[in-house]
Amino acid sequence: MTTYAITAEDVRSAAARIAPFIHRTPTLTNETLSKLAGRELAFKCENLQKTGSFKYRGATNAVRMLDDAEATRGVVTHSSGNHAQALAKAAAVRGIPVTVVMPRTASPIKKQAVLGYGATVIDCEPTLADRERTAGETVAKTGGTLIPPFDHADVMAGQGTLALELLADAPNLGALIVPVGGGGMLSGVTIAAKALNSNIKVYGAEPLNADDAARSFAGKVWLPQTAPNTIADGLMTSLGQLTWPIVRDRVDGIFTVTETEIVAAMRLVWERMKLLIEPSAAVGVAVALSDAFRTAVPADRAVGIILCGGNVTLDKLYW
Amino acid sequence: MTTYAITAEDVRSAAARIAPFIHRTPTLTNETLSKLAGRELAFKCENLQKTGSFKYRGATNAVRMLDDAEATRGVVTHSSGNHAQALAKAAAVRGIPVTVVMPRTASPIKKQAVLGYGATVIDCEPTLADRERTAGETVAKTGGTLIPPFDHADVMAGQGTLALELLADAPNLGALIVPVGGGGMLSGVTIAAKALNSNIKVYGAEPLNADDAARSFAGKVWLPQTAPNTIADGLMTSLGQLTWPIVRDRVDGIFTVTETEIVAAMRLVWERMKLLIEPSAAVGVAVALSDAFRTAVPADRAVGIILCGGNVTLDKLYW
Repeated sequence: MTTYAITAEDVRSAAARIAPFIHRTPTLTNETLSKLAGRELAFKCENLQKTGSFKYRGATNAVRMLDDAEATRGVVTHSSGNHAQALAKAAAVRGIPVTVVMPRTASPIKKQAVLGYGATVIDCEPTLADRERTAGETVAKTGGTLIPPFDHADVMAGQGTLALELLADAPNLGALIVPVGGGGMLSGVTIAAKALNSNIKVYGAEPLNADDAARSFAGKVWLPQTAPNTIADGLMTSLGQLTWPIVRDRVDGIFTVTETEIVAAMRLVWERMKLLIEPSAAVGVAVALSDAFRTAVPADRAVGIILCGGNVTLDKLYW
Repeated sequence: MTTYAITAEDVRSAAARIAPFIHRTPTLTNETLSKLAGRELAFKCENLQKTGSFKYRGATNAVRMLDDAEATRGVVTHSSGNHAQALAKAAAVRGIPVTVVMPRTASPIKKQAVLGYGATVIDCEPTLADRERTAGETVAKTGGTLIPPFDHADVMAGQGTLALELLADAPNLGALIVPVGGGGMLSGVTIAAKALNSNIKVYGAEPLNADDAARSFAGKVWLPQTAPNTIADGLMTSLGQLTWPIVRDRVDGIFTVTETEIVAAMRLVWERMKLLIEPSAAVGVAVALSDAFRTAVPADRAVGIILCGGNVTLDKLYW
C-alpha cells in the first residue's frame, strides 16, 4: 500500500491546532446556481477566510507545527500569491519573523499586502530558478524554515481541514469539486473527505489553459505545467512531488473549463451570491455548470464546491 | 404607555413562521474593519439573504400571515427596489399571484428580476401619487392584499427577526447600527433587540443627502424626505406612520454620512470582507468608521452592523 505525505489523522490534528486562529467559514447554498447546475450545490466560502483564501489554513498549520527554536528563526517562502499573504499573517500572529521572496515583477498591491502583515520582502528575478536560489540563500542566512505553498505535509493537512467543516455542515454531499493548481488543497481535501465518507467522489477543477493536472491524471504520469495562460492565477503551477501521488490514486477525475466559462461563473457568483470570488474559485463553479460534469456525475449527487479565495483587484471590470 | 405597531412577541412568532423559507444568514467578523473602527464589529450578512436583501424576511412574513382566502387573491405592491423582488419571490414560494406596480422609469434590470420571479408588472408614472393610484386600482380589481415596503406591522416584525439571529450569534454586542430609509428594519430590530437586552443601544444610519430620519429624530417631529440625492437608493423614503413612533421613542440616535464616506465603506467591504454590498448597506459601515460615532459611543461597546443588501449592478465601477 502506497504511503502518502499525509493521513486523515494529520488533517484532524491540524483542524484542532488551527481552530483558534482561523475563521470557520460558512457553507452557503443558492437556489439559482443549483437550478443552473441541475443539482443541489453547497459552497464552502474560503474567500471569507482570513487573508482572503484557504491558504491561511495550511500556512497557520505549518507555522504552528514549528518548535520554539525553529519558530524563533522564522519562516521563508517564495510566492507572489495568496500563500505569501497567508504565511505573512500566520507568522505575524505567532510573532515570528517571515521573509517572502517575490519576483520583482509582482504587482505592487500584492507586495503591499504582504508588507502590511509585517513581512520582509526580498525581490528576485521572475524565474523559478532565481526564486528558489534567493529563498535558499535566505534560509541559509537566517536559519529559518522554508514553507512552500503546497508541496509540504503540514500545508496539505491544513488545507484539508476545510473538508471537515464542509462535510459537517453538509453531510449529504455526494461529491466535491476542488480547484487544482499545485494540488495542496485537492490532496488534503481528498484525504480528509474520503476518510469521513468512503463513497464521496472528489474532482479536480482546472483551467483548460493550465491543464497539467488533467493531462497528468489522464495518463497517470506526472507532467509539468508549461506556459499557462489563464486568468485563474492561483492555478498555474505544476503538481508537487507530495501532492501528485494522492491526486493520481485517490481523486476521481479532473475537469477543465475555458477562460470564458471562468469569467461567466465569476460574474454569476458575484451577482447572485453577493460573494467576491477570484477567478481560481470560479473554476470550480464553472465545472459544476459544464456539460461534461453534468454528463459524468449523476444529478442526484449533491456537490460541494470550494470557493477557494477572493483576492481580486477592484480597479477593473472583468466583463 | 404608547402602543406600537409591533411587539417583541410579534417578532418572535415571525421568526418561527419564516424560518423554513429564509436563509439564516451568517454573522461575520473582520479584523481590518474592527481595527479601523477602533472597536469589535460583527456584521449580519443580509446581503446573503434570498433575493439579496433583508426585505425577504418582511415580505415572507406578510405573505405567510395571509389566510387561504386572502392568499388566493394574491398580493400587490408598488416598489422599484428590493421589496419588489422580495415580495415577488415570497409570493411565488407560496404559489399565489403577485402584482408589482413600478414606475416606467425603473431600470430594466430591476423589472427583469421581478418578472423572473413570476410577478405581473404594471407600469405607472414615476410619482408617488400615480404609484399609489395604480396600486389601489389593482387591489380593487384583484381583491389582492397590498403589502407596502415598510409601513406594515407584519413587514416590520419580519425585518426584526434578523436581530434575534444576530444577538444569538454575537450576544456580547453593546450596540447595533441599522440603515434607515422608511424605518421598517430599524423599528423591527429595535423592538426585537431591546427585548433581548434592555441595555443595548440601537442607532440609525442615514445618508446626509437623505437625512429626514436624523432631522425628524432630532426635533422629535416627523419630517418628510424631499429631494433625496444619494447613491444609497434604498434609503430615500420618508419614515412611515407605524415606524416613526418606534424610531422616535426607542432608538438611541441617528448618524449621517456623506456620499464619499458611503462609497469608501462599500469598497472597503468588497475588498477586505469579499462581500458584495449595496450602497445602502455601506451606510452603516461608514457610520461605524465615522468620527462622530467613535466620539459618541464608547469603544468598549462591540457593535453589530446590518449589511442589509447586495443588489448592485456590476456593469460599472463605483470608484
